[in-house]
Amino acid sequence: MSSILKQRVRYAPYLNKLRTGQECIDLFKNGQYLGWSGFTGVGAPKVIPTVLADHVENNNLKGQLGFHLFVGASAGPEEGRWADNNMLLTRSPHQVGKPIAAAINDGRTQFFDKHLSMFPQDLTYGFYTKDKPNGHNLDITIVEATAIKEDGSIVPGPAVGASPEMLSVSDKVIIEVNTNTPSFEGLHDIDMPVNPPFRQPYPHTSADYKVGLNSIPVDPSKVVAIVESTTRDKVPPNTASDEQSKAIANHLIEFLEHEVKQGRLPENLHPLQSGIGNIANAVVEGLASSKFKNLTVWTEVLQDSFLDFFESGSLDYATATSIRLTEAGFEKFYENWDTYSKKLCLRSQAVSNSPEIIRRLGVIAMNTPVEVDIYGHANSTNVMGSRMLNGLGGSADFLRNAKLSIMHTPSARPSKVDPTGVSCIVPMAPHVDQTEHDLDVVVTEQGLADLRGLSPKERAKVIIDKCSHPDYRDQLQDYLDKAIYECTKRKTLHEPHSLRDVFKMHLNFQENGTMKLDSW
Amino acid sequence: MSSILKQRVRYAPYLNKLRTGQECIDLFKNGQYLGWSGFTGVGAPKVIPTVLADHVENNNLKGQLGFHLFVGASAGPEEGRWADNNMLLTRSPHQVGKPIAAAINDGRTQFFDKHLSMFPQDLTYGFYTKDKPNGHNLDITIVEATAIKEDGSIVPGPAVGASPEMLSVSDKVIIEVNTNTPSFEGLHDIDMPVNPPFRQPYPHTSADYKVGLNSIPVDPSKVVAIVESTTRDKVPPNTASDEQSKAIANHLIEFLEHEVKQGRLPENLHPLQSGIGNIANAVVEGLASSKFKNLTVWTEVLQDSFLDFFESGSLDYATATSIRLTEAGFEKFYENWDTYSKKLCLRSQAVSNSPEIIRRLGVIAMNTPVEVDIYGHANSTNVMGSRMLNGLGGSADFLRNAKLSIMHTPSARPSKVDPTGVSCIVPMAPHVDQTEHDLDVVVTEQGLADLRGLSPKERAKVIIDKCSHPDYRDQLQDYLDKAIYECTKRKTLHEPHSLRDVFKMHLNFQENGTMKLDSW
Repeated sequence: MSSILKQRVRYAPYLNKLRTGQECIDLFKNGQYLGWSGFTGVGAPKVIPTVLADHVENNNLKGQLGFHLFVGASAGPEEGRWADNNMLLTRSPHQVGKPIAAAINDGRTQFFDKHLSMFPQDLTYGFYTKDKPNGHNLDITIVEATAIKEDGSIVPGPAVGASPEMLSVSDKVIIEVNTNTPSFEGLHDIDMPVNPPFRQPYPHTSADYKVGLNSIPVDPSKVVAIVESTTRDKVPPNTASDEQSKAIANHLIEFLEHEVKQGRLPENLHPLQSGIGNIANAVVEGLASSKFKNLTVWTEVLQDSFLDFFESGSLDYATATSIRLTEAGFEKFYENWDTYSKKLCLRSQAVSNSPEIIRRLGVIAMNTPVEVDIYGHANSTNVMGSRMLNGLGGSADFLRNAKLSIMHTPSARPSKVDPTGVSCIVPMAPHVDQTEHDLDVVVTEQGLADLRGLSPKERAKVIIDKCSHPDYRDQLQDYLDKAIYECTKRKTLHEPHSLRDVFKMHLNFQENGTMKLDSW
Repeated sequence: MSSILKQRVRYAPYLNKLRTGQECIDLFKNGQYLGWSGFTGVGAPKVIPTVLADHVENNNLKGQLGFHLFVGASAGPEEGRWADNNMLLTRSPHQVGKPIAAAINDGRTQFFDKHLSMFPQDLTYGFYTKDKPNGHNLDITIVEATAIKEDGSIVPGPAVGASPEMLSVSDKVIIEVNTNTPSFEGLHDIDMPVNPPFRQPYPHTSADYKVGLNSIPVDPSKVVAIVESTTRDKVPPNTASDEQSKAIANHLIEFLEHEVKQGRLPENLHPLQSGIGNIANAVVEGLASSKFKNLTVWTEVLQDSFLDFFESGSLDYATATSIRLTEAGFEKFYENWDTYSKKLCLRSQAVSNSPEIIRRLGVIAMNTPVEVDIYGHANSTNVMGSRMLNGLGGSADFLRNAKLSIMHTPSARPSKVDPTGVSCIVPMAPHVDQTEHDLDVVVTEQGLADLRGLSPKERAKVIIDKCSHPDYRDQLQDYLDKAIYECTKRKTLHEPHSLRDVFKMHLNFQENGTMKLDSW
């Protein structure tokens, strides 16, 4: 037993349960329902998933050892190996990585995505285990800890996610204590699940509000093994901002400045939510160098750009359910632990993504879709209506409830044959995750469309004029004109569509690699 | 001045502001932004809307006196006259009635629908008046009262709706005191709007929780006129339940009994939300005659069927933002005022439809869509993707946040040429108001599909098998098979679609009056 492990595990009875990953293999049976800690690729278990993948590979068990796997959002690269080895019978509610997307899209893994705020509660309601033959608990939850307190409770690492809920409805628990990362003790604020009719209001009225519990309670009798983990989280490098994403960020900051000027936002804005990707990074960079001060962040995941945001002096406090940093980012984070740990707090995803709190705080939500249609519906998940990317995530938790719901996207993306072969503004989204009732603002590098208070036809005009790529502007206007012409005859002019042609751009892309049409 | 009016208006200074409707005409100018009280056709002003419609008709002012009109949801038949006279430049967020639907669908009125919980807050944020040339308040709010208290505050009638918010952001206020209906004093529980960053949690933890304010405060200096109204609300008769809606109700009650048996619901269920229409009525009738006792209701609107529900002894408490009764229903209600007023409470729509409270209470939400698609998206608003019916209403407030989100619909509806010409189960909804991430259960007279924890392909199977009409079952299965075949080749099997054919049923309906195809 390493001395650092002994130091980290402050509840002595657990030390009797110390096992190697290998010694845990027998606990796992085909068809079990499993929970993993982790969110956006950090804080997930690593030892057990790896030995199980090895076990399947070494013993030719592909197709014979499969699981129903639930993770708060995405886990680390280990779940990619599970996908490759057909170890994922079902998976929910979010995932990232080529192997798992491949398993979903070629039909080997049954996947469903769910609002990240709602997934944990539906789990504690027993909705996802209702067809489980032997009881309605998860069989085993594997959770990564960075320390264990004197009462046996778990101090997570860089992600809280759905661990509180999973632990509360799990028959057995395995704790991987990661001794290669510093202890994150003091960084978390934990709400344990309470089901209706006994729920009380969440008391949070500001981004820095804490309920005061900094570890996850667990019934020690459920803990069947403690495993030492010595592998750090590995996060791929962030996509740097570029001219396009900077243009988007500039439009957005100009808009926020205008809102302040008009008295619709205070000078330090409202708490910000920002997604993942190069546009999100450009927006955060833009805010850090703007004249806005005393900002706060209420979001789902913090990335490296937030460290710079703190350094700029403009950001007072940030809270999320996960802090997803690169190796360099984590180094910087650990080096400045005393500073960051006072300005930062990680919560369960039921709280970080809570509609109740998001609406109360008046969050400003900013997310990137696959595409937006001319009436303001957005596709966040399914390319061409069918191919799953990563899942819904928390986009709808935030966009439905934010004070300002903003979608930012390039106006067009390259295809294999055409540098602007994909228009991100389309006549109708072939999959709708965010409805026209949920978006206030759409912004591309071309400009910003303020949709508030507009009828669908008015929205279409402003989205086409301000946001669409010049290569597609006339084409989209022609569609709208055609739809208006047809719907004038039918007296169905509220939201004009020509159903026969509505996916012609998508079909043309499937056949010719570009959304540019010869004619409607 | 009638003695009853004097009795109802207990704030003396208002009596000096007594005017006839006619005397108020000069207050109204083309292009003004107006708020009306009212919700689901009750509690709306009647005198002023009528004299203004008369004024336009008698002076040939059609097209010269138009307004931007906001009502909590639908007003009474008076707004139909405004629609006919082109007096509605814009209208939001919900409406009912042929004249106004016609004005929207032939393009005379710009309409946008919004979540009914969110509409009032976006109004107080100034989002809907941001382009108003002269200040960002509503110009005039006309509110119906059944009494005025000693402090000048307003006791509404059968609807609270968005009146608290409208009154708080209005330059001028006209109060129509309805002396033909009894005073509703004591029936309301009022929350006044607070904008972020100052919002506190809603304290409601049960359907009968009251904050304690039973009238709407208003700044008396804003009140420019008091007008006596002697017209009662006129609500058309309810659609009676029939064999089909009873079959739906039976499936649903069987499902709820199963959930209780499995321990996923307590014996008195959770607070119920129920929409409008004959299926909703059948469900309420079914619950009233079921073995469930001590039920509570947290909903948006109460109809006549709830009076029988109370009489059955099974319903302990009901709360909504409006009580929409027929003439006979209101008579019964007034006669038993002492009983009902203890078991019933009307709140603002920001509270009745609050995601925060709906989620906390674990509401069971039941609504009727236009159509549901095989993957569990629902269209609540736009027939064939374009023709507006009534608007979104509170359907998404409830379905997104409920513990159990249920959509009930006939499996098919008659068209002009075919008794089952319209399938309510379709390959893809041509307008999505509720996403696949929001529905737990779909139920038709054919059966009930429990979608919880299912992947899209699994959902499609169960929806087609259990819910679709036999006339369409094979056709829908053929679509699914075809889509799976195509998406197998493309490796896009998460949610299989054939975009070329996805609206073929709708197009066939437009051309031939039936969704039945000769072939795919």
